[in-house]
Amino acid sequence: MQHLERIFSSSPNRIAPDSKVIEACIEACAECERACAACADACLGAPDPSQLRKCIRLNLDCADICDTTARILTRQFHASLRFIRAQIEACALVAAACGAECLAHAGTHRHCGFCAEACKRCEDACRKALRTLPSANA
Amino acid sequence: MQHLERIFSSSPNRIAPDSKVIEACIEACAECERACAACADACLGAPDPSQLRKCIRLNLDCADICDTTARILTRQFHASLRFIRAQIEACALVAAACGAECLAHAGTHRHCGFCAEACKRCEDACRKALRTLPSANA
Amino acid sequence: MQHLERIFSSSPNRIAPDSKVIEACIEACAECERACAACADACLGAPDPSQLRKCIRLNLDCADICDTTARILTRQFHASLRFIRAQIEACALVAAACGAECLAHAGTHRHCGFCAEACKRCEDACRKALRTLPSANA
Amino acid sequence: MQHLERIFSSSPNRIAPDSKVIEACIEACAECERACAACADACLGAPDPSQLRKCIRLNLDCADICDTTARILTRQFHASLRFIRAQIEACALVAAACGAECLAHAGTHRHCGFCAEACKRCEDACRKALRTLPSANA
Repeated sequence: MQHLERIFSSSPNRIAPDSKVIEACIEACAECERACAACADACLGAPDPSQLRKCIRLNLDCADICDTTARILTRQFHASLRFIRAQIEACALVAAACGAECLAHAGTHRHCGFCAEACKRCEDACRKALRTLPSANA
Repeated sequence: MQHLERIFSSSPNRIAPDSKVIEACIEACAECERACAACADACLGAPDPSQLRKCIRLNLDCADICDTTARILTRQFHASLRFIRAQIEACALVAAACGAECLAHAGTHRHCGFCAEACKRCEDACRKALRTLPSANA
Repeated sequence: MQHLERIFSSSPNRIAPDSKVIEACIEACAECERACAACADACLGAPDPSQLRKCIRLNLDCADICDTTARILTRQFHASLRFIRAQIEACALVAAACGAECLAHAGTHRHCGFCAEACKRCEDACRKALRTLPSANA
Repeated sequence: MQHLERIFSSSPNRIAPDSKVIEACIEACAECERACAACADACLGAPDPSQLRKCIRLNLDCADICDTTARILTRQFHASLRFIRAQIEACALVAAACGAECLAHAGTHRHCGFCAEACKRCEDACRKALRTLPSANA
């Protein structure tokens, strides 16, 4: 995400005093989106997909919510913090739920273990962003 | 959304006892996504886009969040209500923020007035879905 | 999609002389996105999801491509027709592939039959849009 | 994208003999999506957004198409190459169009220059993926 960092540093907009935390959250969401999309596909192609159906469902949800959360955080012009904070909260919750489900399959499906790591990193980054962002203004 | 209704009625999955409320919420989110995307484009092409920059920003956020919320609600298999409720809450908040901003421009830009209606309908449908869905289970 | 129609009619931008065809294409893509997302979920919850794995995969692809195609067509300001036409072409192809797979399961899974109809309508609307849009300019 | 690489290496599915090229394309699309979303926001907040309206429009299109293309390529189970190739082609075209527009503003807006680099890298990665993928089978 080297381009993202440079674009932010030359942008007139700023969502929070510490933009490194926001950048790290965007990056963790983006990585988690890709990991979940890949894990859903690997689960779908597994010899017994029936055992992985809840995992696939959560992977799809997590990928969609991560993508939207990354997009919202990337927009720093005229940020309305109330819904932004709610969106990050939803992202932390889905990453926690998806990560827990993936972890339960990590012993038999290595891809689920790797995805659980990406989910955990995303959840942590969202929690850190929530602590860094100013309180809701509107 | 006639296909959606028929697919739901023949699906083995059910997220809530009253699926009509969920369907209405998905439809309102989908309509709001399209309205916001179209409003952002109309604002961008306006003679003086500078006055509409906050509106464009909120339109883009609202479109992304609406799409993701509609997707999450469409998945009814093994629903984890805690993050689903958080996602609907984020959607209600962004629709309220975007609708308020659009309404402020409705006098000079008719497309903003139409978009404000779609946002209001989406916000109401999200609030109704939150009242209908069972409490968070996980 | 009543809001979309009214927003377009009050927008300063126009992608094609006949905006009804573009609106119909956006609506068909939006409906197909929702149908495919719902069909993927219904397939995932079916007693034997293994037989429906290819269907799920194509449903997910079709939903993503439909959403993006609808967004691209909604933006009418400064349209660059070369990639827009390529995106609609991709949408027509995925709708055809997904519709054919769904049709193969329509006898045993009614939701697949309904989804196949949404795919067919989307494919036809994309083909009609391609005939209506001016040739690529850039 | 370390998680993505590891998930792919433990997945039962494979879209092409050389998965490194596909991974590189997914990564370039993901990076370009984030760069374009950030560039659109920076343009929107610029002192004179009117000069950057075509850039914003293309940024939004490029971000959407990049995200969908990355998702399609991430799904390697039962890949239908005909529409996948069409989607990558659309992505190469929008990245070229967006990159050219960004480059025209690089002298006055540094973020546009950085975004142009991400677009160029994405376009090249798409072209390389098209050369690597087998011909369309369906």
